[in-house]
Amino acid sequence: MTDTTHCTTAIILAAGLGTRMKSSLPKALHRLGNQPMINHLITTARQVFDDVVVVTGPDMPELEQAVRPFRTATQTQRLGTAHAANAARDLFGDGDIAVLYADNPLITAETMERLLAARRQGASLALLGMRPAVPGRYGRIIEDHGKVVKIVEFKDASEDERGITLCNAGVMCAGAEDFRNWLEEVRNENAQGEYYLTDVVEMAAKAGSVVCVEAPEDELAGVNSRSELARAEATLQTRLRNAAMDAGVTLVAPDTVFFSTDTVLEADVTVEPNVFFGPGVTVHSGALIRAFSHLEGCTVGEGAMIGPYARLRPGTVCAAHTHVGNFVELKNVELGEGAKANHLTYLGDASVGRGTNVGAGTITCNYDGVFKHRTVIGERVFVGSDAILVAPVTIGDDALVAAGSVITDDVPAGDLALGRTRQTLKSGRGLQIKQSLKARKEQG
Amino acid sequence: MTDTTHCTTAIILAAGLGTRMKSSLPKALHRLGNQPMINHLITTARQVFDDVVVVTGPDMPELEQAVRPFRTATQTQRLGTAHAANAARDLFGDGDIAVLYADNPLITAETMERLLAARRQGASLALLGMRPAVPGRYGRIIEDHGKVVKIVEFKDASEDERGITLCNAGVMCAGAEDFRNWLEEVRNENAQGEYYLTDVVEMAAKAGSVVCVEAPEDELAGVNSRSELARAEATLQTRLRNAAMDAGVTLVAPDTVFFSTDTVLEADVTVEPNVFFGPGVTVHSGALIRAFSHLEGCTVGEGAMIGPYARLRPGTVCAAHTHVGNFVELKNVELGEGAKANHLTYLGDASVGRGTNVGAGTITCNYDGVFKHRTVIGERVFVGSDAILVAPVTIGDDALVAAGSVITDDVPAGDLALGRTRQTLKSGRGLQIKQSLKARKEQG
Amino acid sequence: MTDTTHCTTAIILAAGLGTRMKSSLPKALHRLGNQPMINHLITTARQVFDDVVVVTGPDMPELEQAVRPFRTATQTQRLGTAHAANAARDLFGDGDIAVLYADNPLITAETMERLLAARRQGASLALLGMRPAVPGRYGRIIEDHGKVVKIVEFKDASEDERGITLCNAGVMCAGAEDFRNWLEEVRNENAQGEYYLTDVVEMAAKAGSVVCVEAPEDELAGVNSRSELARAEATLQTRLRNAAMDAGVTLVAPDTVFFSTDTVLEADVTVEPNVFFGPGVTVHSGALIRAFSHLEGCTVGEGAMIGPYARLRPGTVCAAHTHVGNFVELKNVELGEGAKANHLTYLGDASVGRGTNVGAGTITCNYDGVFKHRTVIGERVFVGSDAILVAPVTIGDDALVAAGSVITDDVPAGDLALGRTRQTLKSGRGLQIKQSLKARKEQG
Repeated sequence: MTDTTHCTTAIILAAGLGTRMKSSLPKALHRLGNQPMINHLITTARQVFDDVVVVTGPDMPELEQAVRPFRTATQTQRLGTAHAANAARDLFGDGDIAVLYADNPLITAETMERLLAARRQGASLALLGMRPAVPGRYGRIIEDHGKVVKIVEFKDASEDERGITLCNAGVMCAGAEDFRNWLEEVRNENAQGEYYLTDVVEMAAKAGSVVCVEAPEDELAGVNSRSELARAEATLQTRLRNAAMDAGVTLVAPDTVFFSTDTVLEADVTVEPNVFFGPGVTVHSGALIRAFSHLEGCTVGEGAMIGPYARLRPGTVCAAHTHVGNFVELKNVELGEGAKANHLTYLGDASVGRGTNVGAGTITCNYDGVFKHRTVIGERVFVGSDAILVAPVTIGDDALVAAGSVITDDVPAGDLALGRTRQTLKSGRGLQIKQSLKARKEQG
Repeated sequence: MTDTTHCTTAIILAAGLGTRMKSSLPKALHRLGNQPMINHLITTARQVFDDVVVVTGPDMPELEQAVRPFRTATQTQRLGTAHAANAARDLFGDGDIAVLYADNPLITAETMERLLAARRQGASLALLGMRPAVPGRYGRIIEDHGKVVKIVEFKDASEDERGITLCNAGVMCAGAEDFRNWLEEVRNENAQGEYYLTDVVEMAAKAGSVVCVEAPEDELAGVNSRSELARAEATLQTRLRNAAMDAGVTLVAPDTVFFSTDTVLEADVTVEPNVFFGPGVTVHSGALIRAFSHLEGCTVGEGAMIGPYARLRPGTVCAAHTHVGNFVELKNVELGEGAKANHLTYLGDASVGRGTNVGAGTITCNYDGVFKHRTVIGERVFVGSDAILVAPVTIGDDALVAAGSVITDDVPAGDLALGRTRQTLKSGRGLQIKQSLKARKEQG
Repeated sequence: MTDTTHCTTAIILAAGLGTRMKSSLPKALHRLGNQPMINHLITTARQVFDDVVVVTGPDMPELEQAVRPFRTATQTQRLGTAHAANAARDLFGDGDIAVLYADNPLITAETMERLLAARRQGASLALLGMRPAVPGRYGRIIEDHGKVVKIVEFKDASEDERGITLCNAGVMCAGAEDFRNWLEEVRNENAQGEYYLTDVVEMAAKAGSVVCVEAPEDELAGVNSRSELARAEATLQTRLRNAAMDAGVTLVAPDTVFFSTDTVLEADVTVEPNVFFGPGVTVHSGALIRAFSHLEGCTVGEGAMIGPYARLRPGTVCAAHTHVGNFVELKNVELGEGAKANHLTYLGDASVGRGTNVGAGTITCNYDGVFKHRTVIGERVFVGSDAILVAPVTIGDDALVAAGSVITDDVPAGDLALGRTRQTLKSGRGLQIKQSLKARKEQG
């Protein structure tokens, strides 16, 4: 789908099984910011590189599916990172290529830009380094006069080399042609019998110069377990929260608001504690999202007031100055300007006109067990409490639906619709029933 | 409203535009602990000072409105802090005055007391200092033998002076007469052409002695961006949570409970995770507030059990031993001792007698689109599930409302009220409908 | 209940009043991980020791009740820790005994094992030590060549001794016979006139050798105030969250998920932010627990989808691939495979067959004010929205309940049941009513 003439390519290694995740799902498909890690990384990479190629393991059809339309190469056996990168060799573009990792999903576009820029400023190879708080067992980057000489694996490092704080993050960028040649030269003469991508660094250093670009540890922290996944999620959420606040959004308690990577909140939106934004949400200026609300795939207009305990589901558009209150679920609903649905309501597959008031407990019966049907409510309608609107049904402008009515037929504009029974009384019978129940209880 | 004879005055500078907030709202009106920052600061200042005067900018009518009945002075042009303070000169009392800042809202009454006490113990001027973890570009306080000599702005400070960790917080206290005189002497002969309040310090030092009162950084941290607002909110919430726990309240997960500054919880109240207290809440001893509850403007009696997912709105009083359960909203409701509303209910503008049981799904229709009406339910009433109570309506003691009834007329004490249709059956028709829908689907 | 021949005994001192808790509840009964602290500690102790004996204060009947069937000894006067331990002397087994504290509830079984092992490897007494970040006023452990010589209370310690970072946690383990003898020798010749258990250490050191087993501070941190209780809860929750993630559970935001100590989540369960697990919950593999859900005493089957805002109460079993949606409460409900209850529903004391769809707003009337009754719904039933099922009632397989019906009688398999009124219209009356209400409002 991408023209590969003179194009840069990000190769994402994603064949890892992720045993420590203890999951039947490929590691790259675990989610971050409400999307698979791999998609998060692809989105970032596409801001910098012309094309993306994903190296998958054998038997990972879900992964191939998830990354479409990007091309995949399959590493048939797991014989090391150089072997994995080599699996994609025929899909390299003719420009620079970079090797990324599905389990390092938090690397930013800005860091990728710096890596690519370093390569273009004359390095035969540019690689990412970091200075972790605890360097631990990371490979160390050996430099000489600002040029990288080689990577030393921790287990092979001398005491002095272990003292080096600059660690290898594995990410690198080079010309496609060079890279293909170096990959061919990598040997597996080591204890594990694997082909390591780090060996390329020494080749590149001999062929020209290798430059290290430093990046913050939190961008490069790996995701190999559920705890590390949670930590990566926390890092991502902190970024998203700070970006929102910088853009003029009030987050009363930032740590309790969960974003998706594509959440859009305009300036002067206020978000109370404990709000969850699933994918595809846009909230316009001046709107208030109250505590315990849950939004996915929806748009909230200017000055609208949502929640507490409001759930907006995909396909919902709440126009300006609408009110959606507690224990209200809207699914695929257009709520017209100034319309209100404030209490204990389910509207599904419906449109509600401007200025209409939907009473407490209103329910649209949009599903008959097989098909879904639409409910159309006009402008300035008053839907009485606990009304049941059996779709397909249309209620005209200025109509009034009496509380407790079951509405099965269209209501013309301005009409009053009733569908309930007149109340009757049985004198003294209430107390009688209670007394007889109690008596029965006392008898055991 | 305050007699200004011999009175102390807190001058709050609030004219700042708060550009970094990226907001159409004046900075001082952004909220902290569920009230505008300025009101939070005024409340604290009034515990220590006799009067408060707020200096606003031009075109800030909302701010003037918000601080009523306190008087405001308008700084017509923004020419520096001394210029702002001077705008209020005619509103100073004849006692000591202190200058505070709307964007330093977390200063405590105890710190204000210490500042005032220092002034009264003979200083011509007392000022607040702090020792921030990162002193950065704060002005430094130059002391000599325990007396302040002057403030040096960071940009004018020598290397040695920059090494000083005691920083100027800007807050100061002096006699009104002295202060007026010093303000007149301040000149704007600096790069910005502004009148700086810090210049007063050197004048005061020459006239007598200046004393620095140290306060913790978190009281004096400024609020200039949404991130700083969130940090201030976190500081305030930590104070409120700790105060509640010190008073004998169990917070299972303190970080997930949000308080307003006026929240009152008695000893042996337990609050589960994720509870939100809006303004005006009092909870009496032994009550349990369960997870995901949201309370505003309400009183909860001894031993009551609220939530999970209960929403109590303003005007609600839940007597002792009441139960309010999940997905229940009470607005302006008096719930009598031992009464219960446990599931999926909306009660608005209602009173419910002792020992009454409100069934699942009950809804009061308190609004006809124009007016609000009251529902009065007696003692020991049993309101069956999904009842609709069309207000105004009264249900007598010991009455019984059948499940699913629409109640439009008063129910005398002890009566049984019914307003529903008897069930009918259509033999085999259920399965038939399903099969025909499925057949239609298969045909596409 | 336990045979005391050759048995090890954990003595838990629980007589403390906990004045700083400001509570009418004995300190040991304050809750941690949704159970009283004392029960949490007993559960851990029973993994290591054969028997548990709890020393209570006088007038603590709730505590005696809570720890049943374990035996209690009563410390009639509060005369120090040795005096408390001595109250249990007749209930010691004939094996090793260990002294634990109800307000140190977070000590792990692994630490207790290490303590017991140290004793069995030849120490006359083994005790627990810790190295707190702030040693403060803890007693210091004086060692000589790896053997403990004595404990020095902080107030009696020399400057050098105060520099020791190894602090006494009070927990110790010794042979029952020795321990009984030492307890008899403890004197109360000190300022407080109390009998201190620490005096035993020096006796044991003289009689043989005392060994110190170090444990992390967070296991030994005391709970003496609500703040410390909250901190202990946080420590416990962190353990439970990490254990879940290690077992292959995805916690999107671990800090917002609350566990009980007995929560069981299988691998590949995903838990969204803000979920509360009360006691007795098991969730099987592949299930998704969405945001804002609250589960207690329930089982969730494979691949089920629960929430957001779902509340599962005790006695509920959701079979594989069931869906429970927003604002739905299930109490004592069996939900058959693939059954759905997605919106605003209350089911209590019910069974729902496979493949049945429970419409929005459905409510079971399971309570008549005195008795609870069951609702039985068959397989592949379609319950229309806002249906009211008045229990006891049975709905046969493949039946259809029309939306808005009140069902008071059994519905045979395949039937259609209706219990609602046909809709009527009053032409133009809707608009008329609105206009007259508005006119009335305008007139005031």
